[in-house]
Amino acid sequence: MSIAKLISQYRDEINNRLANIYLDGPKSLTKPVGYVLNGSGKRLRPLLTIFSAEACGGSKEEVFSAALAVEVLHNFTLVHDDIMDQDHIRHGKETVHHKWDDGIAILTGDAMLSIALNLLNQSNVQHAQMNIFIKGLLAVCEGQAIDKEFETKNSVTLDEYQQMIDLKTGHMVGLAAELGAISAGVDFKTCHAIRDYGRLVGRAFQIQDDYLEIFSVSSMMGKSLRSDIILGKKTFLMIHALEKNGSRINHALKTAQIDYKKGIREIRDYIENEGINEIAREEINVILKLADGKLRGLPIDTEKLLYFSDLIKHRGH
Amino acid sequence: MSIAKLISQYRDEINNRLANIYLDGPKSLTKPVGYVLNGSGKRLRPLLTIFSAEACGGSKEEVFSAALAVEVLHNFTLVHDDIMDQDHIRHGKETVHHKWDDGIAILTGDAMLSIALNLLNQSNVQHAQMNIFIKGLLAVCEGQAIDKEFETKNSVTLDEYQQMIDLKTGHMVGLAAELGAISAGVDFKTCHAIRDYGRLVGRAFQIQDDYLEIFSVSSMMGKSLRSDIILGKKTFLMIHALEKNGSRINHALKTAQIDYKKGIREIRDYIENEGINEIAREEINVILKLADGKLRGLPIDTEKLLYFSDLIKHRGH
Repeated sequence: MSIAKLISQYRDEINNRLANIYLDGPKSLTKPVGYVLNGSGKRLRPLLTIFSAEACGGSKEEVFSAALAVEVLHNFTLVHDDIMDQDHIRHGKETVHHKWDDGIAILTGDAMLSIALNLLNQSNVQHAQMNIFIKGLLAVCEGQAIDKEFETKNSVTLDEYQQMIDLKTGHMVGLAAELGAISAGVDFKTCHAIRDYGRLVGRAFQIQDDYLEIFSVSSMMGKSLRSDIILGKKTFLMIHALEKNGSRINHALKTAQIDYKKGIREIRDYIENEGINEIAREEINVILKLADGKLRGLPIDTEKLLYFSDLIKHRGH
Repeated sequence: MSIAKLISQYRDEINNRLANIYLDGPKSLTKPVGYVLNGSGKRLRPLLTIFSAEACGGSKEEVFSAALAVEVLHNFTLVHDDIMDQDHIRHGKETVHHKWDDGIAILTGDAMLSIALNLLNQSNVQHAQMNIFIKGLLAVCEGQAIDKEFETKNSVTLDEYQQMIDLKTGHMVGLAAELGAISAGVDFKTCHAIRDYGRLVGRAFQIQDDYLEIFSVSSMMGKSLRSDIILGKKTFLMIHALEKNGSRINHALKTAQIDYKKGIREIRDYIENEGINEIAREEINVILKLADGKLRGLPIDTEKLLYFSDLIKHRGH
């Protein structure tokens, strides 16, 4: 079977399990949890966990619960982040706090975290797996905290930005990859190399997200990009643009507060004219090459992982 | 050393460890986490974990991380619940979402959950301990969800109320007791009996909380009772009062929305005149007797646990 077909099959299996994961509880919780987990996410993280296990000679069955745990953990962060960022759309659907209310969304996230931990604890878990999962949870909280801190900072360096996305996005993608390797029982060094591969893929993924937020149609992203601009989020492209011409970009941001379309058009035009979009594309390619480099020489079958990073490279939403 | 002195000593040790538990991270997280964990909580749950371990022949040292984990888990629920309930005061201090904002409070709770899990994973943890901890997390979410559902229900039965507080409060107190027993390595039956003792203590504790919310001075409780009345929370005393004379109590609740003092005085007077406060006191005593009964015949030294339930019985805040 081709890897593309395999992905489609694995995705269906993941979706089927997620759809029925929490049915027995108060309706004000089971409904929003079901709503979130029936969303049309790309399921990239659990796919990576399974691919990582298979690359290391493990099986999908052994690692399936851990893969689901990562996906539920990821969705927990989305539900809570959407409250904080006041996003109204996620994966093309209303966000939980917007459809219900903030309280329901907080509880929905908390319950999902418990579900994620329970899935991980059901797997052929070692102490190490739980340990990195818990550390991953803290990393993602810290990344989001720093991201929020950036909103009110006038200037953020690219180094600071990278540290933030490594915590907020990279750490969890690294975790997804590492869980697969650990479950397959490969040596410590291989586990860490695969984790580092995942972290770099996560870093590239986030810069790409920043890129797509400015250059894709909002509906294709399935989330509203409006909030990021309005909130003054420091993305890869915005940091470059602010560094080049702070007063012009700040002026465009002010315009966007009043006339959103006009302000965002000014920012897009500036980014294109200055070639910042090309810088971003180049950066993504360099990071993904670095990621693939981490796999070189490992005693594993790298085919699916290389396919995965290539998939990330070419994603359009 | 007397048990009272021991409690004071243990509480100091708990507070010292909690004060320094999370120092290395983004300030927008370490500050509010430090603020919460430096609060003046009674530390009843970790004390129970330690007493339970000691009752079973275990030591404080072996169970200390797990005890702290329970306290941090408890405080996580308070931070998130206070957002949902719009409470402004907790333990005599401003709540996190009120002092900072909702986003900070959501993240603070999430980070605390990671800290709690990390503490538990550091202890001489068995798979079983993590398992019941994770289930406890879901139970407390479900309890809070049902509590919120009750706010918009006209009538709630005492049975429904009991199920709710067993999830929201009892489960975690049971967990605190059970973790101590498990860490001491006693048999399954004893662990479960001690857990059931804790659950009943938790149930009594919650009814007492309901009582104190109406009959204590707000500042003594260290939390604002205003919100519970305004939100239409279904407490033990309110359910009794509503069952006896729904129209009168609903009228007083409406009054409280406009003139809080007048409304609450009407409710207090009604509850006293009808002897509902006495019913609550009696209920607490009966449940605590049931709790102590769970310990009878166990191959443990029950002294500290019996002291603990007596402490709960006589608490004034």
